[in-house]
Amino acid sequence: MVHQEQWTFETPGHGRMTDLTARVAEVVRRSSIQTGAAQVFAVGSTAAVSVVEFEPGLCRDVPEMLDRLMPPSRNYGHEQAWHDGNGHSHLQATLMGPSLSVPIAKGELILGTWQQVFHIECDVRGRHRTVVVTVFGE
Amino acid sequence: MVHQEQWTFETPGHGRMTDLTARVAEVVRRSSIQTGAAQVFAVGSTAAVSVVEFEPGLCRDVPEMLDRLMPPSRNYGHEQAWHDGNGHSHLQATLMGPSLSVPIAKGELILGTWQQVFHIECDVRGRHRTVVVTVFGE
Amino acid sequence: MVHQEQWTFETPGHGRMTDLTARVAEVVRRSSIQTGAAQVFAVGSTAAVSVVEFEPGLCRDVPEMLDRLMPPSRNYGHEQAWHDGNGHSHLQATLMGPSLSVPIAKGELILGTWQQVFHIECDVRGRHRTVVVTVFGE
Repeated sequence: MVHQEQWTFETPGHGRMTDLTARVAEVVRRSSIQTGAAQVFAVGSTAAVSVVEFEPGLCRDVPEMLDRLMPPSRNYGHEQAWHDGNGHSHLQATLMGPSLSVPIAKGELILGTWQQVFHIECDVRGRHRTVVVTVFGE
Repeated sequence: MVHQEQWTFETPGHGRMTDLTARVAEVVRRSSIQTGAAQVFAVGSTAAVSVVEFEPGLCRDVPEMLDRLMPPSRNYGHEQAWHDGNGHSHLQATLMGPSLSVPIAKGELILGTWQQVFHIECDVRGRHRTVVVTVFGE
Repeated sequence: MVHQEQWTFETPGHGRMTDLTARVAEVVRRSSIQTGAAQVFAVGSTAAVSVVEFEPGLCRDVPEMLDRLMPPSRNYGHEQAWHDGNGHSHLQATLMGPSLSVPIAKGELILGTWQQVFHIECDVRGRHRTVVVTVFGE
């Protein structure tokens, strides 16, 4: 059995993290799938998804870490060709990755107490974003 | 068809890598699934899973690399709020990611000869950990 | 329903990125699956898959970023044991990860306009590589 939903939302700009957990859990509930997994996907090449303890400290630390490891720079090949100022956004999204799968048991996501699913905006400006959740199982 | 198993184990502390390959392969065998994929998930926000050539050199190099890129620091927002000394643990786990899918053909995991599935403890102390394996296919 | 295909190709050497999108899309079409996801897997411990805007600038920037964060070094434990010069290749592949799942709707991959699926060769020399695509859905 497969159940798929997608939705769009606005991000205000670079580094904004959005907690997707409640919304993914609703999709799982609507799927009626008891055992399986929910696959979460960020559409777009300058956004990513992963898990985190979703609290204000880490919502500052995660984007700061990405900016420290992959900082803005005019030296990127992407910048020299396109001049859109988001070379680092692409690198951050590519390294973090766009997809994540969370197992489901007894009709609920299996997550740690402090483990939430999030989307991160890596682009340099606010964007319309789409997340797709595909639930597999029985 | 879906088959799911989970188990718990103890980790002794920060940076310990655990080879999950044999255990995941057993779950695949018990599933009787011939073609599909095994989804491996680390429960908890300070642990991760990926693949590696599981040998002593890399079991030292991978945690050292993570500590170099995301070192302990009192300057993390997470530290300033919670003072539990594991801000870097969260960042490491979030960047590495909690989930992995390995394809299955003829009832066996498709992995390179030197490609093993592992769990890494990113937290600063030993923890009880849970891994969930969900096998999909036919 | 499950449909699986794998293919092999040659990489010329370290840092070469290969666009897999068209090939993955063909596998999805042959599967006849309308709603689901395609799981893409890189066999081997010194290669990885992710998504990127596949253009020449980023095809230079992504491997340069990986080499900057995880540079070649004789100090890796892996080097000291094996002397094969690819300790950084392992670290890069482990952090980027070997697996990716892309959702499918109306029989097509859901990807952003500038979001392509790619394979990256992290090893220090050209290799024969295998990619496995497993399509799930209905």
